[in-house]
Amino acid sequence: MPKVVDYQQRKRELVEATWRIIARHGISGATMRQIAAEAGFANGALKPYFPTKAELIEATYAFVFDQTNRRADVATHGLDGLEALEAFCREVLPLDGERLDEARVVISFWQEAAHDAHGAEVNSQFMAQWRQSMTQWMEQARVSGDLQPRVDIGLAAEALLNFMLGSQISAVLDRSAAGDRDLERQLHFHLDRLRLHP
Amino acid sequence: MPKVVDYQQRKRELVEATWRIIARHGISGATMRQIAAEAGFANGALKPYFPTKAELIEATYAFVFDQTNRRADVATHGLDGLEALEAFCREVLPLDGERLDEARVVISFWQEAAHDAHGAEVNSQFMAQWRQSMTQWMEQARVSGDLQPRVDIGLAAEALLNFMLGSQISAVLDRSAAGDRDLERQLHFHLDRLRLHP
Repeated sequence: MPKVVDYQQRKRELVEATWRIIARHGISGATMRQIAAEAGFANGALKPYFPTKAELIEATYAFVFDQTNRRADVATHGLDGLEALEAFCREVLPLDGERLDEARVVISFWQEAAHDAHGAEVNSQFMAQWRQSMTQWMEQARVSGDLQPRVDIGLAAEALLNFMLGSQISAVLDRSAAGDRDLERQLHFHLDRLRLHP
Repeated sequence: MPKVVDYQQRKRELVEATWRIIARHGISGATMRQIAAEAGFANGALKPYFPTKAELIEATYAFVFDQTNRRADVATHGLDGLEALEAFCREVLPLDGERLDEARVVISFWQEAAHDAHGAEVNSQFMAQWRQSMTQWMEQARVSGDLQPRVDIGLAAEALLNFMLGSQISAVLDRSAAGDRDLERQLHFHLDRLRLHP
């Protein structure tokens, strides 16, 4: 039993070390040796946990996805419809330093997954989960009469998700154009489109 | 004189070889040696042209940006206002195989530039150029009375640009959710927001 706990605990330490390295320096130059050192592991001790760098990046992406979802669960608690949707979107958008570091992890993962069928599959599952939540909140807004009647919900969820993915890029790479306030205004611009009474 | 031509020509060959490698396998595992081989260069002959992999990726990104702009110049020829804006957006969105390969190059670049001030600066300049064109077309639509009067043009350009950046990610990583037709419908969803009479 303790060994299982240790195993999970050490995996977690490695993922957090990878998160810190990506946030500070990016993943492209980082070696498995550096990641092991950052986590306080001997060189080579990393392999039983993550045989390849791609698996380590994927696990770090899953960690970030999970963190975002935990924050979103708290933020949307007791809300429904477009209020819940807005609260969720605010947790995904890179509006503070922590979420900006998360965006850096996500960008590293995207690059890996662009040529890795397994990574792409993981990403698709995660995005399907978000799309489903977003769709449900819009359905609630339709029932309560808050949603603009002409909105195609599936299409609107997809378009909003693509905006949020793109904002990860702008926020990391083009800070002058994507300050926190500006991303919040852009979010409202998109959400107003969905409201019957913006 | 011939030497200058050769130098530019060989740089171009290296960039095109990098483009092909990224489209097929991604950049993360690619070595300078492989890129040299793909371009028919001896190992080591690449250094005078591109001392680092980051510089090579940046040049390949600039090549893709230039290709997109050439297509957009043709597509927007003789158009103005929201028609020109739509034609431009269609050249940026990954609606066919070539543009999907371009998206793969762009994703590789983003990952490099996330921790490289020079790369980020290049990206900011390129995006500023697009933002300016988009803004001008919306200003034309305002003058001609086609633009929804309440639209904040700067904000709308930013929000549309972020949607298009995110669509590069979805189209490469999440094909089931981002078929060509679907991206076109999403574009119309965004553009309808701007039209006085959608």
